Amino acid sequence: MSGKKTVGIGLVGAGFMGRCHANAFRSVGGLFDLPVAPALEILADATEQSARRAAAELGFNRGTGDWRLLVADPAVDIVAVTAPNALHEPIVLEALAHGKAVYCEKPLSTTAASALRMTEAAEAAGALTVVGFNFLRNPMIRLAREIIDAGEIGEVASFRGRHAENYMADPNVPHSFRTDPAGGGALADIGSHVISMARHLLGPIDGVSAESRTIHSSRPVSPGSDKRAPVEVDDVTHALVRFGNGATGTLEANWAATGRTMDLSFEIAGTRGAIAFSQERMNELLVWTPGRDGRTGFTRIESGPAHPPYGRFCPAPGHHLGFNDLKVIEVAELLAAFAQGSKGYPDFREAYEVQRIVDAMQRSAKNGLWTGL
Amino acid sequence: MSGKKTVGIGLVGAGFMGRCHANAFRSVGGLFDLPVAPALEILADATEQSARRAAAELGFNRGTGDWRLLVADPAVDIVAVTAPNALHEPIVLEALAHGKAVYCEKPLSTTAASALRMTEAAEAAGALTVVGFNFLRNPMIRLAREIIDAGEIGEVASFRGRHAENYMADPNVPHSFRTDPAGGGALADIGSHVISMARHLLGPIDGVSAESRTIHSSRPVSPGSDKRAPVEVDDVTHALVRFGNGATGTLEANWAATGRTMDLSFEIAGTRGAIAFSQERMNELLVWTPGRDGRTGFTRIESGPAHPPYGRFCPAPGHHLGFNDLKVIEVAELLAAFAQGSKGYPDFREAYEVQRIVDAMQRSAKNGLWTGL
Amino acid sequence: MSGKKTVGIGLVGAGFMGRCHANAFRSVGGLFDLPVAPALEILADATEQSARRAAAELGFNRGTGDWRLLVADPAVDIVAVTAPNALHEPIVLEALAHGKAVYCEKPLSTTAASALRMTEAAEAAGALTVVGFNFLRNPMIRLAREIIDAGEIGEVASFRGRHAENYMADPNVPHSFRTDPAGGGALADIGSHVISMARHLLGPIDGVSAESRTIHSSRPVSPGSDKRAPVEVDDVTHALVRFGNGATGTLEANWAATGRTMDLSFEIAGTRGAIAFSQERMNELLVWTPGRDGRTGFTRIESGPAHPPYGRFCPAPGHHLGFNDLKVIEVAELLAAFAQGSKGYPDFREAYEVQRIVDAMQRSAKNGLWTGL
Amino acid sequence: MSGKKTVGIGLVGAGFMGRCHANAFRSVGGLFDLPVAPALEILADATEQSARRAAAELGFNRGTGDWRLLVADPAVDIVAVTAPNALHEPIVLEALAHGKAVYCEKPLSTTAASALRMTEAAEAAGALTVVGFNFLRNPMIRLAREIIDAGEIGEVASFRGRHAENYMADPNVPHSFRTDPAGGGALADIGSHVISMARHLLGPIDGVSAESRTIHSSRPVSPGSDKRAPVEVDDVTHALVRFGNGATGTLEANWAATGRTMDLSFEIAGTRGAIAFSQERMNELLVWTPGRDGRTGFTRIESGPAHPPYGRFCPAPGHHLGFNDLKVIEVAELLAAFAQGSKGYPDFREAYEVQRIVDAMQRSAKNGLWTGL
Repeated sequence: MSGKKTVGIGLVGAGFMGRCHANAFRSVGGLFDLPVAPALEILADATEQSARRAAAELGFNRGTGDWRLLVADPAVDIVAVTAPNALHEPIVLEALAHGKAVYCEKPLSTTAASALRMTEAAEAAGALTVVGFNFLRNPMIRLAREIIDAGEIGEVASFRGRHAENYMADPNVPHSFRTDPAGGGALADIGSHVISMARHLLGPIDGVSAESRTIHSSRPVSPGSDKRAPVEVDDVTHALVRFGNGATGTLEANWAATGRTMDLSFEIAGTRGAIAFSQERMNELLVWTPGRDGRTGFTRIESGPAHPPYGRFCPAPGHHLGFNDLKVIEVAELLAAFAQGSKGYPDFREAYEVQRIVDAMQRSAKNGLWTGL
Repeated sequence: MSGKKTVGIGLVGAGFMGRCHANAFRSVGGLFDLPVAPALEILADATEQSARRAAAELGFNRGTGDWRLLVADPAVDIVAVTAPNALHEPIVLEALAHGKAVYCEKPLSTTAASALRMTEAAEAAGALTVVGFNFLRNPMIRLAREIIDAGEIGEVASFRGRHAENYMADPNVPHSFRTDPAGGGALADIGSHVISMARHLLGPIDGVSAESRTIHSSRPVSPGSDKRAPVEVDDVTHALVRFGNGATGTLEANWAATGRTMDLSFEIAGTRGAIAFSQERMNELLVWTPGRDGRTGFTRIESGPAHPPYGRFCPAPGHHLGFNDLKVIEVAELLAAFAQGSKGYPDFREAYEVQRIVDAMQRSAKNGLWTGL
Repeated sequence: MSGKKTVGIGLVGAGFMGRCHANAFRSVGGLFDLPVAPALEILADATEQSARRAAAELGFNRGTGDWRLLVADPAVDIVAVTAPNALHEPIVLEALAHGKAVYCEKPLSTTAASALRMTEAAEAAGALTVVGFNFLRNPMIRLAREIIDAGEIGEVASFRGRHAENYMADPNVPHSFRTDPAGGGALADIGSHVISMARHLLGPIDGVSAESRTIHSSRPVSPGSDKRAPVEVDDVTHALVRFGNGATGTLEANWAATGRTMDLSFEIAGTRGAIAFSQERMNELLVWTPGRDGRTGFTRIESGPAHPPYGRFCPAPGHHLGFNDLKVIEVAELLAAFAQGSKGYPDFREAYEVQRIVDAMQRSAKNGLWTGL
Repeated sequence: MSGKKTVGIGLVGAGFMGRCHANAFRSVGGLFDLPVAPALEILADATEQSARRAAAELGFNRGTGDWRLLVADPAVDIVAVTAPNALHEPIVLEALAHGKAVYCEKPLSTTAASALRMTEAAEAAGALTVVGFNFLRNPMIRLAREIIDAGEIGEVASFRGRHAENYMADPNVPHSFRTDPAGGGALADIGSHVISMARHLLGPIDGVSAESRTIHSSRPVSPGSDKRAPVEVDDVTHALVRFGNGATGTLEANWAATGRTMDLSFEIAGTRGAIAFSQERMNELLVWTPGRDGRTGFTRIESGPAHPPYGRFCPAPGHHLGFNDLKVIEVAELLAAFAQGSKGYPDFREAYEVQRIVDAMQRSAKNGLWTGL
């Protein structure tokens, strides 16, 4: 209809993030001026029935209960993976084997070893890969990065970041994949967000010293059950970090942070300025730079058309972006990279680096030592 | 594909709001579980060419340079009107004459007389009508309304509201339809938002006393022109208001509010509690209710699944909604009303009531007298 | 002791504000480098006994139950009046007759006529007068004034101010002098603060249109009483105002503002910038001025040594001032004016102008008309 | 005059904190109802001349250039020490030897060994001691402590605190006692505040792992000098901490925190609630406790008479306290303890415990190991 080249999309998983991906692919064409148009080809879910129903709801041409068919289908150019974390590796490896580009939800995998296998397979295949660290797509984060890169706050000296939520604060939230010792815990689940943010803004992390704590020592074995089983993963991890550029700081991952719903936040002190942000007010960036004596202070910058790609969503300032819009930006950048044959960002290699840091923190929390990277 | 009954959508106008409507119609099906599915049939724009291009971009089947063809087309069930305000009346009247439902951007028209003609035509036709006062769709506003209706803040005593932006703060912003004495001015342009909000939350307004001021007495006749012409409309209007329920307060419409991008805000004091809100932090509602001595204060409630229909966008709290999501909610409610054959809200009658208040304020600002409604 | 000339202070009233005055006179010498030193000579209170006890506690040399003795005493140079409002006029007139300087709590009197008599008597006597509009003494307000006077926000176009507290929000707060029809009501009690602030920052007010409302129609006749009597004064007054410089705006006085303890706040929009302030965060001033595209926003300026006379209290920023410190500044400026023989500010004339505006608003609220000044 | 027993005060040091002490002693009697009245007897400063001038200004009876005379003078009951940190020990030990009570500014000393000597001397003498950790005196901190002690936020699980200022952010701030390797550095200078706060609220700290960084490797040897010398102390220290009650967290001391003037702040997550505070808004405490679904959020509690001893300063809420008021509270508690013969808080022992933690962090920062306490 538009005369644009279409790109076939195959989506694995129809849960929260699957729906979020589908919505982004449906919306992106009307908002971004892309050289290609996504065609929603196949949706794979746990069963044939659920896949067909979701395909109809979300606007895919076909549904299937077998993701192997999806990744092998010639109509599919990009495989979007929103399946449970433990399934990422087999799906991704097979998609790569069929020459597909892969768009995978975070965390890329449950261990650094697995993430490395996926990364090496992707690099061997020369495949486009993108991992869904959607918070990096925020125009306010892009602004923060520009301010840092332009030297506006001088040399970055200190980073204080956290990702704090409260979804496991209640000791009666039952066990689930989240509390599985293989790949679970607060650090693995949400720590990766603040680690990816730290790397995005400041670059490599060289060393970590971490401390993890299990606040609730047992949880129900299943929803509503009276039977409880011990918890072996962390509810909260605090870590010291050393960056390659000399900056130091702390990171926190906390899923038992009472009162907090999305405090992915940081304060960066540079030698000539500072930046502060919280995802709880995702359309604002606080920036301090020197000025006339008595007139300085943190300036609350609100998102607007001066902060690309905000203008794609609205030509006027003051009309805030929401979480789902970040996913639309992610998909727009994925499609642009696909059309241009360029590298994706953050790609599997970057996600592997994040995973390595998670692993290093986990080791440090166990042995009480600083751990290099 | 989904087996759902489809509803044909005809969109008039492909500017900012037109794209916003198109995006909402494209997204709504994947987010809301609606009994009907919108089919994007025809897009009308100023020229055949621009219409076809926009239709392709936005996913409509056809484009046309003649809105008369659109409103007459049997494939169209709902006509969405995002054309310039001065064109609303002819388009809407003809759409109603063809038995269409009408979804019209605000302001419904440029005068109360015109709005009344449209309202009476719609009521005579028994047509479904919805006017795009999208800010009312915010789950936080729904929460505010619930709190008030449940009596949680007692009897509402005082309302202090404004809609303040800065898009005309620069005296070199040129003349446009916005400064046309027939229907222009800050009060008409954005005052309607805070008036509709006040009515939504507190009910009818009985009387007003207003004062208008033109801050910049002249503006360029066109973009970049050195020639300036006098401005005859208000840059800012302040008004006293009396509500039918006995509450009193002030309203402000200000498009020269330096520093403000979207301060559609209010504070409501009831006899037992208070509510405060600003669209600048649209995912937060501040609520004060009595409590233990020394432990009270405004509580900052963040939007989440407990605030319908937030859960349609995300099953977890902390993932904020954005402006475009409000339009999706509006479209979802429009389609639900269409499917159920129920009344729309806010309908033409409500928009007419808002327009009457704008007119009354304009008269009061001229004669300096309280004006009843 | 210090070799400085001493100034004899006589204080009438030992309630909340009396103690606040005494504390300020005791502290000022150690904080400000003044040419004179206050000597706390006589304290007058309702009875001989209460006066003597208070004198001992607050460090005065003598106590008396008869304010007439105080104002006539040659040891007294400045009479500080914190007695009930209805007693201000006789005390002040007699103090002036004895050639004293007068430092009087606000409101100067309960009617404009009375305030005028006091003003004319003071001017005839050539006396130094200061009225306790302490909120004007805040270094952040001084900064606001400087920013405006220097033209940094361009021409002031709009003022939106209020003084909102909750101390009468409960309908069981009994009658008192506050609800006395002669001089009582929210507008008279706290409206004067925001009116004085508006005048301080923007200059004369030319016209007002006001609306008053009694939210609680009856109150207990005395504390704990079951008997209730009607309330004849306003709980809340909203007003439109026109300034002499062409700016327009609104003022609100509200003592039934649930959730608010000290929202003496304003937002001023100029043609090139904006200022916002609330006494609830008295050590902060929000300022917006134009800047690089995408980098502007309200800057939160915190009080510090760059904002005189903050440095008198602390040589480092970040150590906030409190309410009582404002009174110390007021007393320092009073003593400096006394030593230099200069005019006080705000003096009786200024307080009379504020009272005239209160009166004009009260008339307007009754007859529904704009009232000139 | 008041008939109260007087307590003789000797003040050593007339700098910023000396003046702050003097002001507090002068004000306290008019604000607090104490069983004793302070008499300002002797002020000691560097020279006879400066001491006499300061004594006159600050209201002391006598001035002396020799603190040894002061601590030996029978008119002095309490010795207030605001001399440079390195002089604390000799002054304090001699004051104790003369049987005086001692009120010493923080840090008690520059090393834990010295602090221990002072502590043991005080305990041997049975002397009343108080150390000036004034931020603990804030009514909002008292409220935080009450909330924790009452179990209102459940079991405390995580503490995230910092003391961040910017007074050394400029690399041209010259060397001074602050950068003296013996007792200098950000951790020693301001880290003690957040450590004392952490102990005050959560109790003992069992172990720390710290990392220190010198951001500016050289500074001018003296004000205005072109000659620079290396800096050997930390500009910023980040630390992991383990509390005796099982809670974990991070502490930061940063005197190069661009944009920050007094961010002594913390967030405490308990198993059933949370508390957040920053000294930058010292009259507010944010508290989250569970509530009705969709109605919870952090509640901003403003200081008021419900938070003792706020009512000593003002009988109404909304009148904020300032930094100097915290010192008045400290002095009031000092005098009350003196009158009652009770222990002071925080006493030398407590200050020694804080100093031990500073020392442990310094060792950990050097050897990279967790350090027990």
